Amino acid sequence: MTSTLPSQPDPAVTAALTDVLDGRWAEVRRGAREQLADPRFAPVYGETIPEARARVSRLTTELAATGATGLGFPVAYGGTDDQGGSVTSIEMIAFCDLSLMVKGGVQWGLFGGAVVALGSQRHHEKYLADIITNALPGCFAMTETGHGSDVQQLRTTCTYDPVTETFDLHTPHDAARKDYIGNAAQDGRMAVVFAQLITQGQRHGVHAWLVPIRDEDGTPCPGVTIGDDGPKAGLNGVDNGRLSFDHVTVPRDMLLDHYGQVAADGTYTSSIENETRRFFSMLGTLVRGRVSVGGAAGSATKLALEIAVRYGDTRRQFAAPGEEREIVVNDYLVHQRKLLPALATTYALHFAQGELVSTLHDVQGASELDEKAQRELESRAAGLKVAQTWHATRTIQMAREACGGQGYLSENRLASLKADTDVFTTFEGDNTVLLQLVAKGLLTGYRDAFGSLDGWGKAAFVAEQVREAVLERTAARGLVQRLVDAVPGRDEDVSMLDRGWQLAAFEDRERHVLDGAIRRLRKGASTPGIRQFDIFNNVQDHVLRTAETHIDRIVLEAFVAGIERCTDPRARALLEKLCDLYALSTIEADKAWFLEHGRLTPARGKALSATVNQLLRELRPHMRTLVDAFAIPDEWKACAIIEEEHDRQEAMAAEDARIRAGGYGTPAVAASVATTDATATELEMAPAQ
Amino acid sequence: MTSTLPSQPDPAVTAALTDVLDGRWAEVRRGAREQLADPRFAPVYGETIPEARARVSRLTTELAATGATGLGFPVAYGGTDDQGGSVTSIEMIAFCDLSLMVKGGVQWGLFGGAVVALGSQRHHEKYLADIITNALPGCFAMTETGHGSDVQQLRTTCTYDPVTETFDLHTPHDAARKDYIGNAAQDGRMAVVFAQLITQGQRHGVHAWLVPIRDEDGTPCPGVTIGDDGPKAGLNGVDNGRLSFDHVTVPRDMLLDHYGQVAADGTYTSSIENETRRFFSMLGTLVRGRVSVGGAAGSATKLALEIAVRYGDTRRQFAAPGEEREIVVNDYLVHQRKLLPALATTYALHFAQGELVSTLHDVQGASELDEKAQRELESRAAGLKVAQTWHATRTIQMAREACGGQGYLSENRLASLKADTDVFTTFEGDNTVLLQLVAKGLLTGYRDAFGSLDGWGKAAFVAEQVREAVLERTAARGLVQRLVDAVPGRDEDVSMLDRGWQLAAFEDRERHVLDGAIRRLRKGASTPGIRQFDIFNNVQDHVLRTAETHIDRIVLEAFVAGIERCTDPRARALLEKLCDLYALSTIEADKAWFLEHGRLTPARGKALSATVNQLLRELRPHMRTLVDAFAIPDEWKACAIIEEEHDRQEAMAAEDARIRAGGYGTPAVAASVATTDATATELEMAPAQ
Repeated sequence: MTSTLPSQPDPAVTAALTDVLDGRWAEVRRGAREQLADPRFAPVYGETIPEARARVSRLTTELAATGATGLGFPVAYGGTDDQGGSVTSIEMIAFCDLSLMVKGGVQWGLFGGAVVALGSQRHHEKYLADIITNALPGCFAMTETGHGSDVQQLRTTCTYDPVTETFDLHTPHDAARKDYIGNAAQDGRMAVVFAQLITQGQRHGVHAWLVPIRDEDGTPCPGVTIGDDGPKAGLNGVDNGRLSFDHVTVPRDMLLDHYGQVAADGTYTSSIENETRRFFSMLGTLVRGRVSVGGAAGSATKLALEIAVRYGDTRRQFAAPGEEREIVVNDYLVHQRKLLPALATTYALHFAQGELVSTLHDVQGASELDEKAQRELESRAAGLKVAQTWHATRTIQMAREACGGQGYLSENRLASLKADTDVFTTFEGDNTVLLQLVAKGLLTGYRDAFGSLDGWGKAAFVAEQVREAVLERTAARGLVQRLVDAVPGRDEDVSMLDRGWQLAAFEDRERHVLDGAIRRLRKGASTPGIRQFDIFNNVQDHVLRTAETHIDRIVLEAFVAGIERCTDPRARALLEKLCDLYALSTIEADKAWFLEHGRLTPARGKALSATVNQLLRELRPHMRTLVDAFAIPDEWKACAIIEEEHDRQEAMAAEDARIRAGGYGTPAVAASVATTDATATELEMAPAQ
Repeated sequence: MTSTLPSQPDPAVTAALTDVLDGRWAEVRRGAREQLADPRFAPVYGETIPEARARVSRLTTELAATGATGLGFPVAYGGTDDQGGSVTSIEMIAFCDLSLMVKGGVQWGLFGGAVVALGSQRHHEKYLADIITNALPGCFAMTETGHGSDVQQLRTTCTYDPVTETFDLHTPHDAARKDYIGNAAQDGRMAVVFAQLITQGQRHGVHAWLVPIRDEDGTPCPGVTIGDDGPKAGLNGVDNGRLSFDHVTVPRDMLLDHYGQVAADGTYTSSIENETRRFFSMLGTLVRGRVSVGGAAGSATKLALEIAVRYGDTRRQFAAPGEEREIVVNDYLVHQRKLLPALATTYALHFAQGELVSTLHDVQGASELDEKAQRELESRAAGLKVAQTWHATRTIQMAREACGGQGYLSENRLASLKADTDVFTTFEGDNTVLLQLVAKGLLTGYRDAFGSLDGWGKAAFVAEQVREAVLERTAARGLVQRLVDAVPGRDEDVSMLDRGWQLAAFEDRERHVLDGAIRRLRKGASTPGIRQFDIFNNVQDHVLRTAETHIDRIVLEAFVAGIERCTDPRARALLEKLCDLYALSTIEADKAWFLEHGRLTPARGKALSATVNQLLRELRPHMRTLVDAFAIPDEWKACAIIEEEHDRQEAMAAEDARIRAGGYGTPAVAASVATTDATATELEMAPAQ
């Protein structure tokens, strides 16, 4: 790779970066940028809750008119059967308005998606066309007040009566009411309701039914009690509500019976005998929601970073000796330390998300179900949802603070990005629970490969094999292996900017952390008299670390694969540098582990931080290019400061020039530079020479 | 210390803890708990902005009727001249409603406080009585759109004309408009306006004037333009606005002239000749606002932690083998890892805050100004404001997530705690700028002590002396020194639970980081051709670290001093354990530094994490006691889940019992425990024996 970093911002580099970022669904992205770059899709600040709900309701229907909402549905019912396009489209809507994205996600992703995946042809024929146009607004009534993370334990029951050939849907107590259900409080007319199926005195686990909840006038159906979740931290354009059922009669054919059927006489049949496997097969078809949330979190993060970077590129604060104007905020090292690693991670996650969407599209679009591929997809979706949403929460918070008081005003967008995305870390799967899910997958993979080893004692052998057995393939696997194999000499002689060294460091950490977790679990299990729960719980922090290190590796490999697709040499050089920053700032954040396990010497540990600072300096001139490459239309930004701050700074510069030319009094800036500002310490600290 | 940890929650222990926490202003705290435990002071959810503003306006006046608002004012004008009580009172109001706390802080702390500190007797006589009762609502118009952190560079001018004997107050351009000004958009009738004083063609730096902005009907005064900052991320009960002045005439006697006077002929006089010193003297009197924000952040954090701890103590999720009921969320190690270190830090900061309020009270109440003490107070106030507000942002976010979807609903309080406190990290001084202020103080102290050393080269000697010269005394200094001196033997043989070892580790880190920063600054300064700005900027991250490590030490020492005041042996044992957790989790969070600098061996680094986990296990049974000790009245909590969740869990337990006794179908919980929940891995991982 001989390409060199572009010396300054250049539209051609920006365009080349956009091309790489747009990836496989570039067409959908470009379409959204045109169709949705309309003021009516821009966010509105200061609405009351009824106003926000009314606007988002209206826009949801208008969105259907763009045709984008049919992307994920079968061609036979007016869709285009493009799963990847559907998820990408949600990612784009998230730039405009997160309430609209969630409301649309509920209608087409969750509600419509459940009818497609869990229902039969009769359901498809009867409902899908109206679902796509939003003529039939619906809810996805899974979560209950008492059970969110552990949905297999839902307490709502649906009991079949062969005499009437109907089901009896019932909420036994308050903990079993459906809660946080989008579209429930105001608009939904039907709901996919999840409940324990009981027939012939036997429970068969959680299934789903299509249940009318409101008539055309908006009156709740008999036996259905609808509550309102009221004001929330954000997403106030979404009408989240509560549903309770008092012995509601549901016709037999309203069971979404793709995975389990009840005959007229009450006989239960399913192609999947094991109740748990059946349940997870049902859930697996719904993985799209989780992928969408990760993508939407990425969009909000990009927008927040663009705002903070552009403001920081214009905003000045504090004079410095010898400088005519105050210092541009982005020139401060500590400001770069906030913005640039977050930007590098955002790129990394974007590439990982793109790879995930591609996998989703291919796995779920395949004619035959590949169970292993589906399991990997679910694990990857869970892991990236965690990484994307926590990164969003942290980064938007940081961006808000980086804009100071301006960041707190609604007119500058960050307040709503923060409030609206906040729930992402706990909905569509609580992040901590999802990490545990990912970890469980890793541990199970390990056990499958080595469970039969005598006493699991051959540690060295095991460690050697783990990489092969556990490390899931990513798109870049071949390339990664070549880079890792090419690392020359002893670890501490290799440049930290060697991509192979970085990749090997991520791999090695993942393997070692997993190996350690397994050793500790085994040791715990052999402790006499230990409470079963404690075997796992005593090392829960270590187990979750396995998932985190795994996700980090997946993400780095996706970044490497993304760079590989970039043909413009200067854009590519910029991506390489940004990837260095992602890799090294990730290692730096976990430096204690690398030191503790002898992977870094103290001297190299210190050099690592110096290298990160050096990368920040080199990337500083390209901050604006890197956010411009997200290609977010101006109409979607709705942020006052990125429009106004430039003029204010010019006004101050003009004023200062006037003063210097002999205006009123002593110039304010010049008078006090030497002694008063926060950077003055450098003067005071410099030895007199 | 032979006392042992209480074996279970005990009201006597809780009461003893409350006594220690209540500290020097226990009377004010108890008074607030009685006077404000009234439903009208509880937060209201889902208000429109006009509703929120109207309610908070009304409450501000009602608050005056409680008498609490006069605490910080001179006795002569109806106050009680109790600075510490005044700040403590704001800390208590923050539990009720943060908009009310900020609105009151603006009226009595900033506006009233500026009139007291910067004005003369004639201003006091004319205005203070009405300020105390809120008959004269006012603003503190310092910040401008263009300058928030660097207020010495304000661009508003106030030019004296000896002919008319008036000032001309003027906003030259948009960047100079006053912005984010509380009480401005709706209620304020006067404002303390900060501007550059110009007289006889000379500028004398920033001064303050009392300026009418609205008449009794609410009409803006001639030449005053009032804007509205509109909706914000939070604090929507506060009417933040913008003020611009178009050549507004201000009578000469409206200059708040305690620190600088303008005679009728325009002659400027001041007892402080240096403009910068004068400016910082003026600002210094306003330190109370910064201390109040830190205290209020502490209150919001305590409330958030109480909600998360109580919910986590009731909420259950996921079955485990051999357990009849699902697992209580607080029993999960990873949940403890979230809540308990945050709780320990909250205690530590509470004690540090108490010490700070005491110092404020004594320093500002002294008859003679002790300049050194005032400087230390300002540095301490800045540092603790940073620590308290970032801790609040992180902890409230964590508490929100720890309550899952419930945490996102307004009815559970966390949403407003989060939104309202968010701005705390950037108002009353941006946290990063404040860290730099603290660091500057440390560097200056170092230079004052060693500036004359030949070439600063005697590094060893310097290092030895730094502790004495730089480490500010805290209340516990004597005790700390005894504990440090008592540390036996070599570092790696000493128990990490030895308080002396912990204290020495914090001290040693602070000293070493500071020493390194100075070395790097000196090296930078001697680099040929270096841009002045870069000398400092190249090591800005390191410089800010000096402030962080300094604050950590101050806080740990305050915790140690706090424990010393606890006479109940069981409460004291609990505090000792909690202090261990604060100290060790702080070291753990910066473990890389300790490893990199040879302060921890890798083996001891691993043992550290194990010790933290052991402390979590020991403290687990006392989580509820630790939050109960905050003694927050029920009326202030306004949180649905801590009322409702218990009953829901009981309903589920009863349902399970019914099923086990032969109710409908197979019990849901029992049926799936072995294979489906997220803890199942422990079973699968356990070797078959």
